Amino acid sequence: MQANKGSLVPYGEDEWTSRAADAFRTLFEKACEVFFVFNGTAANSLALAALCQSYNSVICSSYAHVETDECGAPEFFSNGSKLLVARTDSAKLTAHDVRTLSTCRHDIHYPKPRAVTITQPTETGELYSLTEIRQIAAACHELGLYLHMDGSRFANACAALGCSPADMTWRAGVDVLCFGGTKNGMAVSEAILFFERSLADGFDYRCKQAGQLASKMRFLSAPWVGMLESGAWLRTAHHANACAKRLAEQLTDLSNITLMFPVQTNSVFIKSEERILDRLRMRGWRFYTFIGGGARFVFAWDADPAQVDRLAADIRLLSRIEPLNAAVEDQFPDPQQPSSLD
Amino acid sequence: MQANKGSLVPYGEDEWTSRAADAFRTLFEKACEVFFVFNGTAANSLALAALCQSYNSVICSSYAHVETDECGAPEFFSNGSKLLVARTDSAKLTAHDVRTLSTCRHDIHYPKPRAVTITQPTETGELYSLTEIRQIAAACHELGLYLHMDGSRFANACAALGCSPADMTWRAGVDVLCFGGTKNGMAVSEAILFFERSLADGFDYRCKQAGQLASKMRFLSAPWVGMLESGAWLRTAHHANACAKRLAEQLTDLSNITLMFPVQTNSVFIKSEERILDRLRMRGWRFYTFIGGGARFVFAWDADPAQVDRLAADIRLLSRIEPLNAAVEDQFPDPQQPSSLD
Amino acid sequence: MQANKGSLVPYGEDEWTSRAADAFRTLFEKACEVFFVFNGTAANSLALAALCQSYNSVICSSYAHVETDECGAPEFFSNGSKLLVARTDSAKLTAHDVRTLSTCRHDIHYPKPRAVTITQPTETGELYSLTEIRQIAAACHELGLYLHMDGSRFANACAALGCSPADMTWRAGVDVLCFGGTKNGMAVSEAILFFERSLADGFDYRCKQAGQLASKMRFLSAPWVGMLESGAWLRTAHHANACAKRLAEQLTDLSNITLMFPVQTNSVFIKSEERILDRLRMRGWRFYTFIGGGARFVFAWDADPAQVDRLAADIRLLSRIEPLNAAVEDQFPDPQQPSSLD
Amino acid sequence: MQANKGSLVPYGEDEWTSRAADAFRTLFEKACEVFFVFNGTAANSLALAALCQSYNSVICSSYAHVETDECGAPEFFSNGSKLLVARTDSAKLTAHDVRTLSTCRHDIHYPKPRAVTITQPTETGELYSLTEIRQIAAACHELGLYLHMDGSRFANACAALGCSPADMTWRAGVDVLCFGGTKNGMAVSEAILFFERSLADGFDYRCKQAGQLASKMRFLSAPWVGMLESGAWLRTAHHANACAKRLAEQLTDLSNITLMFPVQTNSVFIKSEERILDRLRMRGWRFYTFIGGGARFVFAWDADPAQVDRLAADIRLLSRIEPLNAAVEDQFPDPQQPSSLD
Repeated sequence: MQANKGSLVPYGEDEWTSRAADAFRTLFEKACEVFFVFNGTAANSLALAALCQSYNSVICSSYAHVETDECGAPEFFSNGSKLLVARTDSAKLTAHDVRTLSTCRHDIHYPKPRAVTITQPTETGELYSLTEIRQIAAACHELGLYLHMDGSRFANACAALGCSPADMTWRAGVDVLCFGGTKNGMAVSEAILFFERSLADGFDYRCKQAGQLASKMRFLSAPWVGMLESGAWLRTAHHANACAKRLAEQLTDLSNITLMFPVQTNSVFIKSEERILDRLRMRGWRFYTFIGGGARFVFAWDADPAQVDRLAADIRLLSRIEPLNAAVEDQFPDPQQPSSLD
Repeated sequence: MQANKGSLVPYGEDEWTSRAADAFRTLFEKACEVFFVFNGTAANSLALAALCQSYNSVICSSYAHVETDECGAPEFFSNGSKLLVARTDSAKLTAHDVRTLSTCRHDIHYPKPRAVTITQPTETGELYSLTEIRQIAAACHELGLYLHMDGSRFANACAALGCSPADMTWRAGVDVLCFGGTKNGMAVSEAILFFERSLADGFDYRCKQAGQLASKMRFLSAPWVGMLESGAWLRTAHHANACAKRLAEQLTDLSNITLMFPVQTNSVFIKSEERILDRLRMRGWRFYTFIGGGARFVFAWDADPAQVDRLAADIRLLSRIEPLNAAVEDQFPDPQQPSSLD
Repeated sequence: MQANKGSLVPYGEDEWTSRAADAFRTLFEKACEVFFVFNGTAANSLALAALCQSYNSVICSSYAHVETDECGAPEFFSNGSKLLVARTDSAKLTAHDVRTLSTCRHDIHYPKPRAVTITQPTETGELYSLTEIRQIAAACHELGLYLHMDGSRFANACAALGCSPADMTWRAGVDVLCFGGTKNGMAVSEAILFFERSLADGFDYRCKQAGQLASKMRFLSAPWVGMLESGAWLRTAHHANACAKRLAEQLTDLSNITLMFPVQTNSVFIKSEERILDRLRMRGWRFYTFIGGGARFVFAWDADPAQVDRLAADIRLLSRIEPLNAAVEDQFPDPQQPSSLD
Repeated sequence: MQANKGSLVPYGEDEWTSRAADAFRTLFEKACEVFFVFNGTAANSLALAALCQSYNSVICSSYAHVETDECGAPEFFSNGSKLLVARTDSAKLTAHDVRTLSTCRHDIHYPKPRAVTITQPTETGELYSLTEIRQIAAACHELGLYLHMDGSRFANACAALGCSPADMTWRAGVDVLCFGGTKNGMAVSEAILFFERSLADGFDYRCKQAGQLASKMRFLSAPWVGMLESGAWLRTAHHANACAKRLAEQLTDLSNITLMFPVQTNSVFIKSEERILDRLRMRGWRFYTFIGGGARFVFAWDADPAQVDRLAADIRLLSRIEPLNAAVEDQFPDPQQPSSLD
């Protein structure tokens, strides 16, 4: 609110932006370069474009958001850098995947790998351990690749692993981090951190040209000041993670409800019969089913535990309905408001 | 504020976004397609990219913001559409310029003109009359060109001309309008209006791919609801225009201060000796000098008339100082806070 | 040779280029638009870029050359159009694949499908039957997609299927064809045929901007005149196909040599033990192993049947060597010149 | 011709390509990196794209071919690098222009200059002296800019200045040269020379992705072997220059025919009354008038001196016809074949 008062020097040279950048440097214990952009699509795509030339490629998991849900944005921003997708069943990339995809071909028809991107936590809510990140980073640097971390839910990973932001990133070998603000409760803002400062050369121009320089930059940067300085970024992430655990624990004894992935951060993926999911929807619950057909529940920074319990109760009840005994449903109370999802 | 409460369907399918779009349709008396993006760079560049293929060109004035101040953004978003610049002394393009640039060459080495962009009001604060817009539009449509209007200060033009938004745009032949919110007092948001709806085909995908789709779109759209429904958009523009006129009128009798352009909207460009500008700066006034070396004063929606008068008084005083009699300056009171500029 | 004499109007407006285009129109029994570019990378990438906007996607097989061997060229020329890859075991796309990939998602995060590309014959030397092409085309047009055919070895497909070029393309529903000249014996030249002429609007400008307009266009176009008017394009393709069949027939009785794909055009893919392939290489034979680790032998328009027989003899001999009895190899004659591969 | 025989390793790893590259290294007395592409559009655009990021800009003369005649190709290949055009009356850029355009603005809205391109000889047939090139190069390197030379008629410049290729390029401070083959008599081929080898990192991939890697590269490279090893490249350039001089000398005494630019290489620009130019055209002479409305005569490597004399005679005759006495023309012999133009 405070940042909205009065007139300030535009385009990111104001005091709020500089204070937000400093808050990141303090939090990450590193004199990194910090930029603020409008959303995650731009943050990840611009960061990858800064690491690559158009003829380079980026190694990623087949679950990676940049591959599945960005409508070609990475290719657009980089003018053609291809994503090389590891065709494994896991959302987590391994050092082995990196080695395989970057050494299987060396001919000129294969876009030269230049960067690796991992999502922490993954799109399935799973975590890379510090050891796994270090192994991937070691493979990257041995092979001349940069390591980019898509941290749209970075806070949730920090909360879950209980490690410092520095340990999970540059100390483990990450070169660039996109730190999500939107999923952390902010209106519009993602931060991009270059731990190797020379990688940020010209990045301000790149942002400007790509329509990601806010004239009133303080609206993007100022919210981070409060968020980081107060520790709210981590507190709310702990809360969101706890909500996911709270839901999962209430579902473990149900035979026809399966948790698709370990619940490690703030999302729960449920595999169930379609009729159960349909009834959940009818009762007003909103969720996506784009990964493996399961229902994804992601808990936001401000999720209401009572809502979580109501959701659990609904799932429990629906899971017990016999396929042919739909009448039981009539006992149901009125549909609830949907949970706060991100 | 109200839009920030609770959780809503993301990515622009929420109620606020639809209400804001409807407010535009009402204001413009037209069932147009409406999109919201983060800033003016993106609004103009995406709109032009939607009108052109990479091998097309866009005709503009040599003063056009897209030519002088977008760091290659139009070329980036369109993947190479060249700007064909009318080399005239005026910030205003004419129907004659359009005809000349689009018919002077027809060979394949000359990027095929496909769109014309005009800024209303221009970067120099001048206005196209309705007749002029109609003449340009007639030339465009006769030559198979689309007409795009960069309206980053569109409200100021409406206030100054006293005409309806419809008259200044689609009724005059404008195909696409970028309506500025940032310079109208909003944090981050520009609206793009396609009056010919088929031109908007796929534009939602274009925005998404280019990192201009807000997941919490209501933060971009909701402020427009209040702004448009209350009439504030026009009221504040009238106020800003009046401030510019107020400044200009206090400077007309000064022999060594020249108004570079007619003061028609909310900016005043002053030509003066460098030493006078320097002293203005020393007294805390902030202004750009990028057009013709003159000082540009742009008055924001919330400019304070008392500030305007203080600025006028400072300019009057400084204009009377003899070059070699700098001592007079000692009589000055302390520097003031800078005016509210956009 | 004849076209090299004297000075002609440059940039494709010469008589040879117009005569070559007419030869294509005659051959295809269709008043199509014809363009000549330098190589297959450009031909396919430009054709797809003409069909798509940057936010669109192109459906293809996982074996498709545009996906595996173009170093990101399709994404570069189109400024980000993503390839949606059918994850099947076959090099041949099916109408079912087209339907699945184009209807599985409709959200804005999924690049909107706009074109389908099939390679005839496929990268594995297999053929789409006319029925299969018609089925794919029907699915395409029902779904609002264009059908592009990568015909870098189009002549071999015509020779093998014994059908007219028209039947294999526009009569079956193909919208755009890239007809390969390089693999047909020419130095540098690929032809692009738009059967729906409106799709070619502006394509000349697109070629120019992308560095694919030859100032001395006759060098690209004139060789086609002789090739098409004399029927050589088809005669040489028949010959190349026959060479592949000749090799395959001599290998059918070998227990440790497997033909990986049906031999339908001019290539033979052999699966064998690595030590056998190694010895083939030592004996001077050149081949790629990029598909499934097998050895690919592709026979050119001018392949020498005697060479084919020598290759067959070498494979037969090597296939009989016991793993531990390398001494047998000493009986071998000197390595031969490599076969003529494309 | 010799290179067309038999089958060779494709994609530029053949013996002819390596021999052609060596011939350039010998000629330029420098271990430079050498690439061959299909035409000048691609050569210049790819070279500039290798020097710039999309948000960078390239300083050039307003006469520069990349600005006036490439249909947006430089912007397309670089994904948006803007050309900053020196608005002077001369086709020759000066060190002063470079300094002005690269230091006049430092804000983020101005695309950051990264390269300078000069054409030697210029589009008007004029020459930069070695001193001028050195001055421009010094300014470039002082300002952190690369110097690119568009040498589509480089041979003519060498012939005219009588200096070594090394002296005109890297010894003077040029970083990258595009050496034209097409205008030197070849079918399709331009060479790109990076004198600073690290600038060529990844350039082979860039060429491949942009559709400029010939599978039968020897067709692009082999002609250079003969051309360079035999000295023909320079001999033919001397001849072409001499033809231009021969024409100019026969026109000096005509009062209504003006030479627009000093005739320093192989082109002659004539300013004349439109009726004279029209009659020249009627007599079968072909020429462009795109620069300043004058007639451009460019003499090719194989221009026929007798033709030059016939052209001179025609101009002399036409220049003497009274405006109202068109009957004189009836005395004219039949129109001649057009001169050999490039």
